[in-house]
Amino acid sequence: MKKLSIAVLGAGSWGTALSLVLNSNNHVVNLWMRREEQYHQMLETRENRKYLPEVKIPSNIHLFTDSIAAIKGTDIILLAVPTQKVREVLKSIKSYVEPHQIIVNAAKGIEQKSQLRISEVVEAELPQQPYAMLSGPSHAEEVATNMPTAIVAASLKKDTAEFVQHAFMTSKFRVYTNPDVAGVELGGALKNVIAFGAGIADGLGFGDNVRAALMTRGIREIARLGKAMGADISTFAGLSGIGDLIVTCTSMHSRNRRAGILIGKGKSLKETLQEIGMVVEGITTTNVAYELAMKYNIEMPITEEIYKVLYEGRNPKDAVINLMTRDRKNEMEEIVNDSNVDWQ
Amino acid sequence: MKKLSIAVLGAGSWGTALSLVLNSNNHVVNLWMRREEQYHQMLETRENRKYLPEVKIPSNIHLFTDSIAAIKGTDIILLAVPTQKVREVLKSIKSYVEPHQIIVNAAKGIEQKSQLRISEVVEAELPQQPYAMLSGPSHAEEVATNMPTAIVAASLKKDTAEFVQHAFMTSKFRVYTNPDVAGVELGGALKNVIAFGAGIADGLGFGDNVRAALMTRGIREIARLGKAMGADISTFAGLSGIGDLIVTCTSMHSRNRRAGILIGKGKSLKETLQEIGMVVEGITTTNVAYELAMKYNIEMPITEEIYKVLYEGRNPKDAVINLMTRDRKNEMEEIVNDSNVDWQ
Repeated sequence: MKKLSIAVLGAGSWGTALSLVLNSNNHVVNLWMRREEQYHQMLETRENRKYLPEVKIPSNIHLFTDSIAAIKGTDIILLAVPTQKVREVLKSIKSYVEPHQIIVNAAKGIEQKSQLRISEVVEAELPQQPYAMLSGPSHAEEVATNMPTAIVAASLKKDTAEFVQHAFMTSKFRVYTNPDVAGVELGGALKNVIAFGAGIADGLGFGDNVRAALMTRGIREIARLGKAMGADISTFAGLSGIGDLIVTCTSMHSRNRRAGILIGKGKSLKETLQEIGMVVEGITTTNVAYELAMKYNIEMPITEEIYKVLYEGRNPKDAVINLMTRDRKNEMEEIVNDSNVDWQ
Repeated sequence: MKKLSIAVLGAGSWGTALSLVLNSNNHVVNLWMRREEQYHQMLETRENRKYLPEVKIPSNIHLFTDSIAAIKGTDIILLAVPTQKVREVLKSIKSYVEPHQIIVNAAKGIEQKSQLRISEVVEAELPQQPYAMLSGPSHAEEVATNMPTAIVAASLKKDTAEFVQHAFMTSKFRVYTNPDVAGVELGGALKNVIAFGAGIADGLGFGDNVRAALMTRGIREIARLGKAMGADISTFAGLSGIGDLIVTCTSMHSRNRRAGILIGKGKSLKETLQEIGMVVEGITTTNVAYELAMKYNIEMPITEEIYKVLYEGRNPKDAVINLMTRDRKNEMEEIVNDSNVDWQ
């Protein structure tokens, strides 16, 4: 592919890891961060000590604290800031964005105030701008150390999806296209809620059987809400759905799971956030998911229990036991409702 | 529920754990094992030292080495022997089985010679006998220590499924019914192949991203074959499908995964089997799955690579890299083929 110029906005672990991928593809990478302090640290050490320690940042990844300068003349603007910061960043650059620049989003969440997906936030701030979402099972720490990874680039437009696919694709970083932006965005956001819940169960000392049951039901409640919100249900069976849910619920790299473990061990929300020291998207997303479940009248028992643990003082252990033992209509596996097979 | 009498044939870890569940429900349990040596050890110590150490076997679980005596007068005959032994056990008891006795199978595999599912083997040996399959994410070690667990009882007949559900259901061991016997049996058998493959990747030092990608594609190739063999595709999204796949691919309790890890670390098949010391269903199932994929003309790339590692000397690392990087038609996420969402 021809050499592109790409602005990466946000130098957390994921923005930094994706910069390394793009750099390995010989693109020009402008990596922007807000904080001067981080900028100086990275410039001096060529490492991102706080967010992605012990990985060398090559000198041809250009560091910026001026986002307007970082995006100038680039082909792709990659958003790698926390979900609740996306609109603010878009507002700060919108007068300078050119029509051909593709916005690629790597944040996995839903804007809390508006309940909008990121593509909708981008559409509101930069109408008609070409857009793709990058999502899938992809811990930054593994991508940065060149472990094989497979993810999805979702865009409503095939050209855009394929352009982004080719920009990011390497022999180790495999990118597949998907037209279902809503499904990919919702899967990426909502799995953090389930991972947080799986972490709570782990922190309480429950076993692998519980975690697997929570994950199985978790992807189903995500898919139910997603379907109501216009996503395709089959997307949740893919890399950005169950794939990302699996990696987030089972890996110690996951901040959402780690935060849940701390809550399960009895720490307060405040102590937990302090100990993690980075944004825990799953906690904010729990609020939004809970509201969306009510708005669309969708049964989301896991989300509901986690919401109650976070905001209504529900005992975490009771929450997990509720989830494992609650009655269901005639105790039949609920998926069978969608099934073609019936009793003889 | 009224007190039942239940024969458990097979005192491996799963048969023993299920005996404990049934005993806690106040049923009479007759636990049969073939080997005299194990019988004497268990009788003396009231522990199953080899297969489920450090768990007390209550004295009202009756131990047998005579299977005819064990099944006499019981309501349920639970098969908890390795898949390839099921027919032999059925042959040995068939003249003594009464028409009302429900055969419940807990083995997860496919008979190698005949390529039959266990329900089909039972139908061949004991035509018209009521039958249910018990399957789901349920490590014996956790069930035995009373960790919450949710599984599925599948039967073509609703009455049978519900009878089995009530027989096994406790506050910690949740049983859901499902009419799709083929889907539940195939999910339980084929996930062992994927878990063995995920173990190989882990043993080679690949990361969580690789494992999640293999699992996501794994359940899809299982579902493809399952559909061709008459199962309902949505069963693979349930506890006995993705749920069991998750627990088997991520837990150290899984023999299939552990066997894969040893192969990934460079041990031979013989050394691996010796070190595990129990039946590794995933290895036998790989053969059958490979043959079934050819017979039904289904693309099963993970199964195929594992088969080649086991029997054609394929280097395990090359196999994993093949799986992560192989070309796909237009590099679109393959699930999109089933999807309603399309490019604009």
